[in-house]
Amino acid sequence: MPKIGIGIVGGGYMGKAHSAAFAAVGTVFETTLKPRLAAICGSSPQSSARYAEAYGFDHAASDWQALVDDPAVEAVVIASPQATHRAIAEAALSLGKPVLCEKPMGLDVAEARAMVAAADRAGVANMVAYNYIRTPASQFARKLVAEGALGDIVYFRGEHTEDFHCDSNGAAWRFQGDANGCLGDLSPHILNAALALMGPVEEVNAVIETVHPERDGIPVTNDDQVQMMVRFKGGAMGHLAASRIAMGRKMGYAYEITGTTGAIRFDQEDQNALWLYEQREDRAQRGFRKILTGPAHPDYKPFCLGPGHGTGYQDQIIIEAHDFLTAIDGGAPVWPTFRDGLAVHQVIAAARASHSSRNWARPADF
Amino acid sequence: MPKIGIGIVGGGYMGKAHSAAFAAVGTVFETTLKPRLAAICGSSPQSSARYAEAYGFDHAASDWQALVDDPAVEAVVIASPQATHRAIAEAALSLGKPVLCEKPMGLDVAEARAMVAAADRAGVANMVAYNYIRTPASQFARKLVAEGALGDIVYFRGEHTEDFHCDSNGAAWRFQGDANGCLGDLSPHILNAALALMGPVEEVNAVIETVHPERDGIPVTNDDQVQMMVRFKGGAMGHLAASRIAMGRKMGYAYEITGTTGAIRFDQEDQNALWLYEQREDRAQRGFRKILTGPAHPDYKPFCLGPGHGTGYQDQIIIEAHDFLTAIDGGAPVWPTFRDGLAVHQVIAAARASHSSRNWARPADF
Amino acid sequence: MPKIGIGIVGGGYMGKAHSAAFAAVGTVFETTLKPRLAAICGSSPQSSARYAEAYGFDHAASDWQALVDDPAVEAVVIASPQATHRAIAEAALSLGKPVLCEKPMGLDVAEARAMVAAADRAGVANMVAYNYIRTPASQFARKLVAEGALGDIVYFRGEHTEDFHCDSNGAAWRFQGDANGCLGDLSPHILNAALALMGPVEEVNAVIETVHPERDGIPVTNDDQVQMMVRFKGGAMGHLAASRIAMGRKMGYAYEITGTTGAIRFDQEDQNALWLYEQREDRAQRGFRKILTGPAHPDYKPFCLGPGHGTGYQDQIIIEAHDFLTAIDGGAPVWPTFRDGLAVHQVIAAARASHSSRNWARPADF
Amino acid sequence: MPKIGIGIVGGGYMGKAHSAAFAAVGTVFETTLKPRLAAICGSSPQSSARYAEAYGFDHAASDWQALVDDPAVEAVVIASPQATHRAIAEAALSLGKPVLCEKPMGLDVAEARAMVAAADRAGVANMVAYNYIRTPASQFARKLVAEGALGDIVYFRGEHTEDFHCDSNGAAWRFQGDANGCLGDLSPHILNAALALMGPVEEVNAVIETVHPERDGIPVTNDDQVQMMVRFKGGAMGHLAASRIAMGRKMGYAYEITGTTGAIRFDQEDQNALWLYEQREDRAQRGFRKILTGPAHPDYKPFCLGPGHGTGYQDQIIIEAHDFLTAIDGGAPVWPTFRDGLAVHQVIAAARASHSSRNWARPADF
Ligand SMILES: NC(=O)C1=CN([C@@H]2O[C@H](COP(=O)(O)OP(=O)(O)OC[C@H]3O[C@@H](n4cnc5c(N)ncnc54)[C@H](O)[C@@H]3O)[C@@H](O)[C@H]2O)C=CC1
Ligand SMILES: NC(=O)C1=CN([C@@H]2O[C@H](COP(=O)(O)OP(=O)(O)OC[C@H]3O[C@@H](n4cnc5c(N)ncnc54)[C@H](O)[C@@H]3O)[C@@H](O)[C@H]2O)C=CC1
Ligand SMILES: NC(=O)C1=CN([C@@H]2O[C@H](COP(=O)(O)OP(=O)(O)OC[C@H]3O[C@@H](n4cnc5c(N)ncnc54)[C@H](O)[C@@H]3O)[C@@H](O)[C@H]2O)C=CC1
Ligand SMILES: NC(=O)C1=CN([C@@H]2O[C@H](COP(=O)(O)OP(=O)(O)OC[C@H]3O[C@@H](n4cnc5c(N)ncnc54)[C@H](O)[C@@H]3O)[C@@H](O)[C@H]2O)C=CC1
Repeated sequence: MPKIGIGIVGGGYMGKAHSAAFAAVGTVFETTLKPRLAAICGSSPQSSARYAEAYGFDHAASDWQALVDDPAVEAVVIASPQATHRAIAEAALSLGKPVLCEKPMGLDVAEARAMVAAADRAGVANMVAYNYIRTPASQFARKLVAEGALGDIVYFRGEHTEDFHCDSNGAAWRFQGDANGCLGDLSPHILNAALALMGPVEEVNAVIETVHPERDGIPVTNDDQVQMMVRFKGGAMGHLAASRIAMGRKMGYAYEITGTTGAIRFDQEDQNALWLYEQREDRAQRGFRKILTGPAHPDYKPFCLGPGHGTGYQDQIIIEAHDFLTAIDGGAPVWPTFRDGLAVHQVIAAARASHSSRNWARPADF
Repeated sequence: MPKIGIGIVGGGYMGKAHSAAFAAVGTVFETTLKPRLAAICGSSPQSSARYAEAYGFDHAASDWQALVDDPAVEAVVIASPQATHRAIAEAALSLGKPVLCEKPMGLDVAEARAMVAAADRAGVANMVAYNYIRTPASQFARKLVAEGALGDIVYFRGEHTEDFHCDSNGAAWRFQGDANGCLGDLSPHILNAALALMGPVEEVNAVIETVHPERDGIPVTNDDQVQMMVRFKGGAMGHLAASRIAMGRKMGYAYEITGTTGAIRFDQEDQNALWLYEQREDRAQRGFRKILTGPAHPDYKPFCLGPGHGTGYQDQIIIEAHDFLTAIDGGAPVWPTFRDGLAVHQVIAAARASHSSRNWARPADF
Repeated sequence: MPKIGIGIVGGGYMGKAHSAAFAAVGTVFETTLKPRLAAICGSSPQSSARYAEAYGFDHAASDWQALVDDPAVEAVVIASPQATHRAIAEAALSLGKPVLCEKPMGLDVAEARAMVAAADRAGVANMVAYNYIRTPASQFARKLVAEGALGDIVYFRGEHTEDFHCDSNGAAWRFQGDANGCLGDLSPHILNAALALMGPVEEVNAVIETVHPERDGIPVTNDDQVQMMVRFKGGAMGHLAASRIAMGRKMGYAYEITGTTGAIRFDQEDQNALWLYEQREDRAQRGFRKILTGPAHPDYKPFCLGPGHGTGYQDQIIIEAHDFLTAIDGGAPVWPTFRDGLAVHQVIAAARASHSSRNWARPADF
Repeated sequence: MPKIGIGIVGGGYMGKAHSAAFAAVGTVFETTLKPRLAAICGSSPQSSARYAEAYGFDHAASDWQALVDDPAVEAVVIASPQATHRAIAEAALSLGKPVLCEKPMGLDVAEARAMVAAADRAGVANMVAYNYIRTPASQFARKLVAEGALGDIVYFRGEHTEDFHCDSNGAAWRFQGDANGCLGDLSPHILNAALALMGPVEEVNAVIETVHPERDGIPVTNDDQVQMMVRFKGGAMGHLAASRIAMGRKMGYAYEITGTTGAIRFDQEDQNALWLYEQREDRAQRGFRKILTGPAHPDYKPFCLGPGHGTGYQDQIIIEAHDFLTAIDGGAPVWPTFRDGLAVHQVIAAARASHSSRNWARPADF
């Protein structure tokens, strides 16, 4: 069975998650390509060595350029901060190496667009790491919506709310710069979900807000929460919100989809359940059905044969790794590609413009 | 114990509910004023007679004017359609009779303002029938917020969503005229809740939408759903939505209040539970607490000595009746007065203006 | 419309509840018999007078015998302690007056059997006040089971758990005597539910336990909790439990019914929802459906036209009052009659025998 | 970093799960021992080869004896059917190789006792694979109970209910033989949980039942469901149930623990939440708190830094693998050892005896 050498840039939160995912994916899924942990790097040779040892990589690269250049590295995963995504992706793509890039894929629309161009030139697999949409539940929701199980969609409400910055105990850099704010860093997940479930956004009207202007005595230069009314191209109205100060919410990636014949509710805090309402049932028996995911749902079975036994956060990253290997192996792009990542950036850009102008703005204009 | 004769205009959905409430309230609560069901009327002498017989009134009035004039009627409840509220209220108030008026209190801001003026002139008890905010759970939520149990509020999300117009099987008049639309008829409840919990609204940005332009072959002239971003005077950001086509939602009067030290979640579909999150607890033990209402919460004990035994829709109307009797007896106004009802209309008016202009609008300007 | 004079013995917890119920039922339901609150009594003339005034009765009876004898009292509700039920019921029945008796209907099997005999002799309406089973949700559950919607039932689990005696702050008499213990006082509700949903009990194997042998320095002579394995005559296995020290449970009247084609789950703490699972659905879409009660369910519509708007504890008593009036008016017995109340006592007696013998026991033997 | 060669017997449901766990555990956890997938075998050389290829093992052993003898195999995981556990464990232990054996560890008490003896003689790490109790939530529950956070425990209710045999579409062997029945195969998980949370069982009174005596025309020789009342040595009363025909339940490993100052509720179908009730809170604010697991709970942090992000079934097996490596590395036994597995078998044996005699029975007697 062919092996493919994986190189991972970054060994922090997500670098570790991708390492564990590529360690497991070949056992969990029946992939034709079996990954091997070829090389990893951090921001220094020291951290690189530490990561390689801790996660079981063959090799610690001195820096990302060395990692990208290493012939043993046949595909690159970018799990370093936003500001580094573009250069690394362009370098890897220019060598014809497939790239899986952490969300939100670069700092802004301009970077995302440059990355799409680089991917187009390279013609190899390119993906953005939107993991939450890959749960069996959310994949099933996409399927139901796409198949028309809910009729025409009339309203979509999505949120990504967490409370990790309710205390000011985060690293100082998290409170500096648009890319690290709530809109730049947290909202992309739910924007991606909205696009995946509902299709393109026609226009948005957003409010962006810094609730705590100062943290630990230092002025904060990015936002704590954001909300936006949206109009989807398909016609439906929607509302999207994100917050890093949503007291009590730990993983509030949640959506409600209201259609003319049915409805869906989902909350990532109970990621193994999808709530489905169908109008067709007898009036006395209608209600939201709590469907526990199982082998009958997308990408569940490789993890467990029993329904309701549950998948978790790390499993999403394994599914992602599998999708990436499939894209590499099959030659065909697997959603979400860099182009899909760009679409998220366009909504963000429109939201910023809308907030400044206190007016509606169109993602397509960015 | 002094008796007070109650006259009710309207014997439909809410007319019946108020009848049952005034039949029970004297037994449930220890009121000093004990109501007696003096007179009722509908839109015709026939319906008046039918209501009087069915609900156990002393007398059937031929029409609302006769009812208001009847000396046995010492206080008037208006449970007829929006269009009739103003004239009835003005007539009753001009005779110095206290008035409990169904929401939303008249057709629009102008009517509501006239009604406030009439109430001011009369100087007697005047109340608007916002019943959902009177559950023990929502009263307790108000208390917690007012006492600062959540710290400073940073976000409020409210909705009133139902699906009773998902099928087009409603009476034709419901699809005609602003006052009968979703914004005019359904949203007032959650606007009232927002004002009760959060205080005045500074500005709004709204989208109002008719999803089904035609029903049973007849053009629809009012809206199916509405959403609005709001800024409260107190500083917090918010979002309010209402829908009469929210497939799957039966009583989706729900809100989330996010503060700097705690949070609340409530959904009227489980009206006997209030979810409270408090940051002060040990990190490993934090979570939303599902508090079942009981004798420790406002207005619960008269219904039952056991916590968790539950109150229902009809009990809200009984609490309302008790509040009205208290206002009459004490001479002091009891929230929500006509003035509070006017505030709801101002938000609605601002929302309409915002939608037309695709811009922010201020309730205070209406 | 014919009026019927109601006399209520007891004005405490349940005496008040029945008073409010009979005050409201004529307005809520379209009964042919309209009740009037004729007379009430407590354990002294003073308390009788207080109750009559507070609840709006025409008359305060000096004691229960006077109340029963009063010609204005045409039907009697017994809401005084267990020990008084039998004598009052026999007196009323001997005068041909219908009786609604609070659960569990007398102190033990012998009393219950005597009461059944008295009712048989009188040939008038006789009912036991099992209110929880009258929620629209539980009535609907009974209907579903009876219609075979779940196939053959293979397991039934029921509990009635509350925590009102977790603190030792109750009245001293509550800790004395079998009839006031958990098995005697609390478990009857869920035993009644088990019989209503599943039919007769063939045999039981029970453990009865006093966890706190002393309260406030006084020895406790009755039980805190009980559990029993049961075999229903219909063949299904079951488990029933009751506790007055079930920390955290406020109204834990709950059951799960497992059948060969479907299942039901219900918890009175969310009394307006019934959870239904049906095997017939597509595997990927199976799940427990949360059905909110509404006008499509038994006895809901008189309270409210909107589904999900909810009924509460007091409404159960109103439904009970309506059933009683129906039984009186129609001449035909309405479930649960005294005979059904006796069946509960027989299960209790068998449970006590089982506990003593550490062996299985049969209700039919008692 | 030292490597340890892992050999796995069985490549079915659990063989695969253990393979994936050992592939990932070295990356997820900071173990000093890093596992390598040395060898695997199935019931034939063909299946062995297939498993080795699919899961990425160095080597396919021809049969379990060869695997155990292979010097590259330094620790053995037994994931083959019950009937094979004993022989494999004894062989491995006699060579001084640590063993992780799938539940329930052999066919019966006699086998389990023999395995304990073998482990004692070998003096190496020995563990039974009870995975559900290893979720961060259940580990935290154990901690809370052990620390007395609930006061004295007065009642424990546990169940393991699934519906995988509601349809008769399982393999024929599953319906033959005690070891494959509900009591033998499914109940061990919740018995293990009861022992872990509550300590030893003093006596049991059980009902064991075959609901469907025939499947696909073949007589069924084992049970579909079981329930038992128990008395724990610590004094508390309890109830345990298991079912493979519990329509609607997918992963109904659930328990409720009632103490004198608090209570816990847990349901594996929402494995990332633990519900905790504490009496110490203000009466108006008491309620079950839904705690989402996170880095503050046992064994969560290696999977994810964000609370509420969730772990799943496969992660439990990874935690198990980590515990096994810790036991090997540290030399000290890690719970649950073979001795703990034996205790489960003793409860099962007592339950069978109780059912036959229709009487109470004591695990210690078996
Ligand atoms: N999909 C998801 O759920 C999440 C995605 N992310 C995304 O993952 C990316 C990384 O975030 P975290 O892992 O949270 O950050 P982190 O701070 O935990 O780790 C960042 C890693 O990047 C390395 N790094 C930094 N600069 C580098 C450079 N110039 N060359 C090589 N390595 C460098 C650091 O040494 C560190 O190992 C970001 O794009 C972030 O938006 C972050 C958290 C969750
Ligand atoms: N608080 C709440 O939860 C609800 C409030 N409402 C409000 O209650 C009011 C009544 O609505 P529904 O009871 O649903 O309507 P409905 O159509 O069920 O009943 C209206 C009643 O008014 C009577 N009526 C109509 N015109 C009249 C006239 N000129 N004079 C005397 N009686 C007249 C009719 O005979 C009928 O009895 C409205 O203002 C509505 O917004 C309605 C439903 C729920
Ligand atoms: N269905 C349900 O949900 C409940 C039923 N119950 C049942 O209701 C009955 C009454 O219980 P509670 O109302 O809780 O008791 P309580 O102590 O609150 O009230 C008892 C009432 O009976 C009166 N009374 C006592 N002895 C009397 C006598 N000899 N003659 C006339 N009146 C007398 C007392 O004055 C008092 O008004 C009991 O049978 C109890 O089991 C109690 C609580 C809930
Ligand atoms: N912890 C848990 O959640 C679960 C535990 N189990 C336990 O895991 C064990 C295996 O069950 P499953 O994986 O469900 O069975 P399975 O039927 O899916 O797999 C059994 C495996 O054992 C192999 N095998 C059978 N006989 C063998 C022999 N003589 N030599 C070598 N390999 C042999 C088969 O080839 C097959 O690969 C059982 O003890 C079972 O009780 C099973 C399911 C869940």
